[in-house]
Amino acid sequence: MIQSIGLAVNLDKPNATEIASALTESITARGRRVFVDEAAAAAIGRPDLGLSLDAFPGRVDVVFILGGDGTLLGYARRFARHGLPLLGFNLGHLGFLSEAEPGDLDQAVHRVLEGNFDLEQRMMLEAEVRRQGRLVDRLLALNDFAVGKGSLGRMATLRVDVDGMYVDRFAGDGLIVSTPTGSTAYSLSCGGPIVVPHLEVVILTPICPHTLSARPMIVAADRPIRILALANHSDLGLSADGQVHLRLQPGDEIVVQKSPYYTTLVQWRERRFFDVLRQKLRGAEDR
Amino acid sequence: MIQSIGLAVNLDKPNATEIASALTESITARGRRVFVDEAAAAAIGRPDLGLSLDAFPGRVDVVFILGGDGTLLGYARRFARHGLPLLGFNLGHLGFLSEAEPGDLDQAVHRVLEGNFDLEQRMMLEAEVRRQGRLVDRLLALNDFAVGKGSLGRMATLRVDVDGMYVDRFAGDGLIVSTPTGSTAYSLSCGGPIVVPHLEVVILTPICPHTLSARPMIVAADRPIRILALANHSDLGLSADGQVHLRLQPGDEIVVQKSPYYTTLVQWRERRFFDVLRQKLRGAEDR
Amino acid sequence: MIQSIGLAVNLDKPNATEIASALTESITARGRRVFVDEAAAAAIGRPDLGLSLDAFPGRVDVVFILGGDGTLLGYARRFARHGLPLLGFNLGHLGFLSEAEPGDLDQAVHRVLEGNFDLEQRMMLEAEVRRQGRLVDRLLALNDFAVGKGSLGRMATLRVDVDGMYVDRFAGDGLIVSTPTGSTAYSLSCGGPIVVPHLEVVILTPICPHTLSARPMIVAADRPIRILALANHSDLGLSADGQVHLRLQPGDEIVVQKSPYYTTLVQWRERRFFDVLRQKLRGAEDR
Amino acid sequence: MIQSIGLAVNLDKPNATEIASALTESITARGRRVFVDEAAAAAIGRPDLGLSLDAFPGRVDVVFILGGDGTLLGYARRFARHGLPLLGFNLGHLGFLSEAEPGDLDQAVHRVLEGNFDLEQRMMLEAEVRRQGRLVDRLLALNDFAVGKGSLGRMATLRVDVDGMYVDRFAGDGLIVSTPTGSTAYSLSCGGPIVVPHLEVVILTPICPHTLSARPMIVAADRPIRILALANHSDLGLSADGQVHLRLQPGDEIVVQKSPYYTTLVQWRERRFFDVLRQKLRGAEDR
Repeated sequence: MIQSIGLAVNLDKPNATEIASALTESITARGRRVFVDEAAAAAIGRPDLGLSLDAFPGRVDVVFILGGDGTLLGYARRFARHGLPLLGFNLGHLGFLSEAEPGDLDQAVHRVLEGNFDLEQRMMLEAEVRRQGRLVDRLLALNDFAVGKGSLGRMATLRVDVDGMYVDRFAGDGLIVSTPTGSTAYSLSCGGPIVVPHLEVVILTPICPHTLSARPMIVAADRPIRILALANHSDLGLSADGQVHLRLQPGDEIVVQKSPYYTTLVQWRERRFFDVLRQKLRGAEDR
Repeated sequence: MIQSIGLAVNLDKPNATEIASALTESITARGRRVFVDEAAAAAIGRPDLGLSLDAFPGRVDVVFILGGDGTLLGYARRFARHGLPLLGFNLGHLGFLSEAEPGDLDQAVHRVLEGNFDLEQRMMLEAEVRRQGRLVDRLLALNDFAVGKGSLGRMATLRVDVDGMYVDRFAGDGLIVSTPTGSTAYSLSCGGPIVVPHLEVVILTPICPHTLSARPMIVAADRPIRILALANHSDLGLSADGQVHLRLQPGDEIVVQKSPYYTTLVQWRERRFFDVLRQKLRGAEDR
Repeated sequence: MIQSIGLAVNLDKPNATEIASALTESITARGRRVFVDEAAAAAIGRPDLGLSLDAFPGRVDVVFILGGDGTLLGYARRFARHGLPLLGFNLGHLGFLSEAEPGDLDQAVHRVLEGNFDLEQRMMLEAEVRRQGRLVDRLLALNDFAVGKGSLGRMATLRVDVDGMYVDRFAGDGLIVSTPTGSTAYSLSCGGPIVVPHLEVVILTPICPHTLSARPMIVAADRPIRILALANHSDLGLSADGQVHLRLQPGDEIVVQKSPYYTTLVQWRERRFFDVLRQKLRGAEDR
Repeated sequence: MIQSIGLAVNLDKPNATEIASALTESITARGRRVFVDEAAAAAIGRPDLGLSLDAFPGRVDVVFILGGDGTLLGYARRFARHGLPLLGFNLGHLGFLSEAEPGDLDQAVHRVLEGNFDLEQRMMLEAEVRRQGRLVDRLLALNDFAVGKGSLGRMATLRVDVDGMYVDRFAGDGLIVSTPTGSTAYSLSCGGPIVVPHLEVVILTPICPHTLSARPMIVAADRPIRILALANHSDLGLSADGQVHLRLQPGDEIVVQKSPYYTTLVQWRERRFFDVLRQKLRGAEDR
């Protein structure tokens, strides 16, 4: 049973402090503990509830994330290895990951305490970056890794191998390696398909490929994907979820694998993937 | 061990009889039985080797198919429930399914008899068509089912549900339900992704959708997909592998599911999916 | 000055008779003549205002079309050679061609009588179909011509020449030849670009092309486009604006040229192409 | 009549010096003057033929460019205001702009001196970049301008107006403004259509747009296109022909207009746009 709830708040969002205050009261009124990340605790005038985010695991049973999908992505990477369930509260646009709307705070608290929700496990990816044989960085992503050229750079040429088999060279703006969760994000903008969240597959989506026959590709999630940055690109980078950035050098090798960690999302039973999809992607009147 | 080989020959292809004759000799010279489909047996002047295709299962250990990918698709559906391994011999363009080239007949026979090959299981789909509650037809496909409007018809509007959940209405030229094997066929022409053959997923690809936000979708293979033909379409049809056609009526319901049957393909170990893909889809010089 | 207005009414649309009645009154109250197509005149109980559509040219100065873009397309082809200005009243979805909304009937009449509008000339296309050298049909289109395979047909292969120069063979579901006006219709669904209405260009858009390198192409409007139906297609058709259909035979030759006729649209000055475009195509919330 | 030929040589290309030497001899043997850019003159051991590129206009009647399409783009911008005809010699891949192949040097010289060629005028674009009202740079392009985010940047949001009319906001990786000549370059990789070279239109192609309804757009060439860099993009840039780069700041305004200058290309009469297109884009065997 849920005894203790942590609040992680994106203070840049409108009404973030009001909603954090209201949630704090609602949880307390129901007799459960609430911890608030230190910055937000100060912002709402309750430093007594403040807790370092690093101390959340072990002290809270679920984290309420106040922000949008972008905010949730960051906390997903941060709490991934602790398996903490996350419930996103949308403080902006309708989200794919954020389940609760600011209008139903009280009901959301009630549902969570009643256990009236599902826990959905979302596959994550890890990337290891090797430079001249040495590991230079290791990144985690819930949505995607993107290897891409910069605005001042020339075309990127990437060699891709999957499970030790040579796939192809991709010349163009770059390549995305996406989870099903990320299939509705950057990969979709680049022509990738929509993938239902629970499938254990990975989407390789070329970004503006020079060769017209280069197309999005679906491969198994349990095989390593190796991307080699060929040639001389002065301005090549790797991004995790579009949020963490690493400058690459020619010859760098990126190996992407399924992470052993999953993001655990609190989801309302009646709010289904396809319903959100229709709402998010459509809405324009028919021609 | 392979004791008996059946030949199924597409006599419309160039050199079909010559290659059938050569294969017959090569197999016989190696001391194994060969059966030839009756039309081809007559065409090569060996009626003594003729055997009805219906009698192939039980009498032959593997079927050599002389034609192209289209020919193989037809035999795949025909022999699906008997689990007969199929080896395609390309008599035309390079194929995704046909493994052997006419130039290496003898070596192909040798490899098969030596057991120097892999058997790859390819997922198939079944469709049941219901009209006013009654089952009117049941079809099998290795590549895909396409529900589409005719050249003289108006836009098709289809309602799709997956696993009992409403997905969306698709207005446009129609919808493809494809296996991974079919991902490099019609679905690719309609913007679908390439899916490696062994994944157990299904691709839903809208055909020229009216709504720009309608995109290819990857769903699990073990959930039923229900397509309802809405409104009044005078000229709507269902195709299996682009080869078997059924005229639909408004209100018809098509339920597509993973078939219990798989197509078993004889494949050379060194000829990998990605290699064929590069050869088939690329080739144009870079811009 | 506008002295006489014709009403052409799509009686299948909701509220068509009410709106026709209201327009009739509004026009009459302002002291101008109104004629109503005979079916609609009967439907609104004013057979005295009935006039055959064939008699509209010469008797009316402008035609009000009650329906949607589809209705307007039909009247555009019908009245093309008479240069009659057309004003569409939307009885359904927001339209690209239909300018007036049912909510502002009175104001629309007022604007028209005041001359408070622009007349926009929209390029049209003509197609001649030749079979074994003989002209078998001649069609007109405001949006597009589509040469396509039927739902039961196999892939269409079309040879295209522009201005006597060989362009390519297109294998797939077919080919669209579109005006700028048609660029937001079927061509857009097939991946074609949006073209601002006044440009004198033609868009060639392959429909689900087999070859991934086949792409939409923009050519000059004043050069003949010749499409040759190759090979044996049992089920090939030609459509004008998706409304007039002609069954084709293998070997048929279609020559598409700019029509000498233009459709003249009554347009409000403040309602601009890009505004309608944003409203029609967008509307979905951002991801 | 051609009396004097200038050679502009990309010394990074294989065989550049050999081909430059051979051309020099071939031209001299035919009794015409040849000038070679100073670096190349030194490289081929003929400093006596060296001439500064700046001195080419006025001294040479035509410039032979040894390199590829990329090399030619650079010289096109350099010589644009002088109207010098350019003939590209391909030292790499088949090119859209480079007409002559290294195998037919002598014949190419012969044709040029005989006047056996066409001169094709290719539209160019100019961009003015304004920062807080001040003009900060002015660029020229034969292919395209691209406004885009860098590999480490966040999504770019650009507001576009054409001819003073608001078009839309484009969120995504950026936007390309392309000439017909550039339609087969970067714009094509981003989903833009192919436009025959002589049309006076401009292609606006969104790069990986966030909104699925954002599509390539064709507008008239004689209307100014204004792009406003909205919001806070740390890493936004403007490129001309993918070769000249300018870092942008939020609030920067780019106004793209048709240039008064055209690039004049020497073209063989029998080598037509559609022929090159088929060769460059196709070549892959059919599926």
